[in-house]
Amino acid sequence: MDLLILSTGKMGQKTFELALEDSFFTKVKGISSEELHMEEYTQYNVVITFSRPQAIFKTLDYCIRKNIPLVIGTTNFTNDQQNEIYKSSKKIPILQASNMSIGMNLLFKLAEITAQIIGGQTDIEIIEAHHNQKKDSPSGSAKTLIDFIQKGLGYDTKLKHGRVGEEVREKGEIGVHAIRGGNIVGYHEAQFIGPLETIKLCHEAHDRGVFASGALTACKFIVNVPPNFYTMEDVFDFTLRKRS
Amino acid sequence: MDLLILSTGKMGQKTFELALEDSFFTKVKGISSEELHMEEYTQYNVVITFSRPQAIFKTLDYCIRKNIPLVIGTTNFTNDQQNEIYKSSKKIPILQASNMSIGMNLLFKLAEITAQIIGGQTDIEIIEAHHNQKKDSPSGSAKTLIDFIQKGLGYDTKLKHGRVGEEVREKGEIGVHAIRGGNIVGYHEAQFIGPLETIKLCHEAHDRGVFASGALTACKFIVNVPPNFYTMEDVFDFTLRKRS
Amino acid sequence: MDLLILSTGKMGQKTFELALEDSFFTKVKGISSEELHMEEYTQYNVVITFSRPQAIFKTLDYCIRKNIPLVIGTTNFTNDQQNEIYKSSKKIPILQASNMSIGMNLLFKLAEITAQIIGGQTDIEIIEAHHNQKKDSPSGSAKTLIDFIQKGLGYDTKLKHGRVGEEVREKGEIGVHAIRGGNIVGYHEAQFIGPLETIKLCHEAHDRGVFASGALTACKFIVNVPPNFYTMEDVFDFTLRKRS
Amino acid sequence: MDLLILSTGKMGQKTFELALEDSFFTKVKGISSEELHMEEYTQYNVVITFSRPQAIFKTLDYCIRKNIPLVIGTTNFTNDQQNEIYKSSKKIPILQASNMSIGMNLLFKLAEITAQIIGGQTDIEIIEAHHNQKKDSPSGSAKTLIDFIQKGLGYDTKLKHGRVGEEVREKGEIGVHAIRGGNIVGYHEAQFIGPLETIKLCHEAHDRGVFASGALTACKFIVNVPPNFYTMEDVFDFTLRKRS
Repeated sequence: MDLLILSTGKMGQKTFELALEDSFFTKVKGISSEELHMEEYTQYNVVITFSRPQAIFKTLDYCIRKNIPLVIGTTNFTNDQQNEIYKSSKKIPILQASNMSIGMNLLFKLAEITAQIIGGQTDIEIIEAHHNQKKDSPSGSAKTLIDFIQKGLGYDTKLKHGRVGEEVREKGEIGVHAIRGGNIVGYHEAQFIGPLETIKLCHEAHDRGVFASGALTACKFIVNVPPNFYTMEDVFDFTLRKRS
Repeated sequence: MDLLILSTGKMGQKTFELALEDSFFTKVKGISSEELHMEEYTQYNVVITFSRPQAIFKTLDYCIRKNIPLVIGTTNFTNDQQNEIYKSSKKIPILQASNMSIGMNLLFKLAEITAQIIGGQTDIEIIEAHHNQKKDSPSGSAKTLIDFIQKGLGYDTKLKHGRVGEEVREKGEIGVHAIRGGNIVGYHEAQFIGPLETIKLCHEAHDRGVFASGALTACKFIVNVPPNFYTMEDVFDFTLRKRS
Repeated sequence: MDLLILSTGKMGQKTFELALEDSFFTKVKGISSEELHMEEYTQYNVVITFSRPQAIFKTLDYCIRKNIPLVIGTTNFTNDQQNEIYKSSKKIPILQASNMSIGMNLLFKLAEITAQIIGGQTDIEIIEAHHNQKKDSPSGSAKTLIDFIQKGLGYDTKLKHGRVGEEVREKGEIGVHAIRGGNIVGYHEAQFIGPLETIKLCHEAHDRGVFASGALTACKFIVNVPPNFYTMEDVFDFTLRKRS
Repeated sequence: MDLLILSTGKMGQKTFELALEDSFFTKVKGISSEELHMEEYTQYNVVITFSRPQAIFKTLDYCIRKNIPLVIGTTNFTNDQQNEIYKSSKKIPILQASNMSIGMNLLFKLAEITAQIIGGQTDIEIIEAHHNQKKDSPSGSAKTLIDFIQKGLGYDTKLKHGRVGEEVREKGEIGVHAIRGGNIVGYHEAQFIGPLETIKLCHEAHDRGVFASGALTACKFIVNVPPNFYTMEDVFDFTLRKRS
């Protein structure tokens, strides 16, 4: 398989390096999306882009015209842009995910199941930890984790970002705690605390390469499926199907 | 609903106490299984037994004749005895489980899913902790946890109970570590350690009442289902169905 | 030894129960401080009070007059009141502590040492967890933990109670995270996160009796020392001295 | 300061790299100990060696003759060899340590204190985790951790490396659990489990550079002290003294 990586940032670079070492990919090219003409796309079996939202639509257009499956590692689109992506997935297979770590996406799914089964009877608290230079709190992945938990619960909850002062926990709120320190790559933990028992689900990324590794898994998945909109969850189902 | 509890031990006592406080149960009686005549069974809608294997077959017989759903909290039967239970479940609903904590059974299921999706690419290690008077290592629940993980993997693995000396970890072995100390009620943790990321699934029982509480949940489930053989996993599926 | 417990609350009750089971104490009486006349004090070798600040000064006066060592389990005094306590400790032995758990006080000391040795090169974050009905955040013990850490650092730090939004961690701030859920008795963790290594110090109370148990240890200590002001730290030193 | 590093292995290489980036060291040379003549030693203010035991005695001889402080990062000497090192430390300052991570040595000290104060009333269990290619279990650092705990207890204990089968925990034994998986750099945890409360002391190495970093701290310490035998504990005391 020949892979085209559109990105000028660290994620693209790391994905490029890993792809070179992976025998599944015969040819690998990494480039900024703006620099590439449509005809050059035809040389590749799959395209992955980490570009900014506004740069993605030319890529989307080229992939549709040349019928090439596309992996999108960006998520903060406007509603209109996101609908454009959904519409395009009727013509070519598109997988979109903000965090392509297999383990992190598995954590999302496990947290959804746990919320569905015991979430209503437990107090839910999230801990996430990242390096001391991270700008945003909580992390994007913590937000996604909360989305999955709310999906499992079947309703939205109030979020409580840290606690201070005289205030009792509201029934149903989710506590969110952002630890920042050292060079921590990424840690997420969902606690489901009941009166008699507690379940904790934890994910730790040891190396930033985990996201690039998952991106390649997504690329391998997308070349084998019909046009549709996919997420990392479908990659799991695929893994499960292969087994059974 | 009227509930009959057959047991002379602590689990039966605790289940009895919890059932009294639970408005779902109108009448609750706790008694040793040997003491009860068949006709008395007809006064109850559901029977739960924690009796020893040899004492259970009279109960099984009575429940079939009186058409009463049965929950069995004992598991170490001979193959013949266990087959007898399976056969009986064609006539009445029977749920059987060694550990009826909802959270613990959920952990089993989450560990199976995790093993299925990333188990093959990770090193799996189990930590369990119990009070310092516990006789057996590893705990029965840790063994069940390993069963579920192997089911998820699709193959059996070598178990390694602690490590000492000069020996490298064999690919595919599961490390099992039994911590004993203080009054710890029960802690189980499954680690899936990959080169780039790790997932840890943890369950902590805070109070021995957690098992009795799950037993009552099983009783509430079994009165609403057709004759068949059920496990705690079906109780979850039931929870999930009610939600969707 | 004959022990007088002044309190009408849960801590006094629990201390009373534990003292009855402890052969060190020949006679034990529990009572509200307001109800007792001075002459009755003379029957006891040691007094422990958990009363409110305003009720303590009569006790202080009686203990001085009758020369009886005093343990005070209350801490939120005004400066004037606290100075009165310090002054009184020139006449009789007085031990004062807000949290008398031996383990918790040990955690305080370990955190101070750790802060002194590596605190300046690490990012410090505190996690504490308590039951979902607790009114104040962070816990009093978490505040004391921070005091000890700042003593170890040699300077005060900015506290950050949870994080949300776009803001990078300030160098030197201490992050404080209050988890609330279920019936958690009390958990405190101090993380010292460096670029190359992290130290975590954790204390978990399994049972509220841990505070009463420490209170009795304080009573046993105070009957053997000359007039002075003592804290739980001195109880450790005493333990250490007995060993060497 | 000018630093000579004697080693051909990874630790020497890493220490060399870190020393180059550290302005404290004006000149840094890394070499195999066998290759160097005595006269070359005179160009350095401090020597650190990671060489095998048999190669160290020429270094020891040269350092004494040229009066240069020496740091030794090797520990498995015979009694005679170790006595030779002790004897030499009357002439020049010598610091010897198997694990030069500041945090790890701090963990040792904290575990000793904890053992001294509450060790006798608690059940002690050790968990250590390392990568899946590590040959020996438990780790050398876990053994040192146990040594410090026994020093704190004031007596030796039975060690229990994992548990399996029907056997109750012996009072006073220390459980030792060696987890192996993925690329874990190094994790050590000492649990002191009491009936009412538990203390856990944890150290995690994020990067193998942590040992080289501590080695340089040892070099900075040794150039400022009179002839004597030192360990990493003295480096802490030095840190503490500088503060007060």
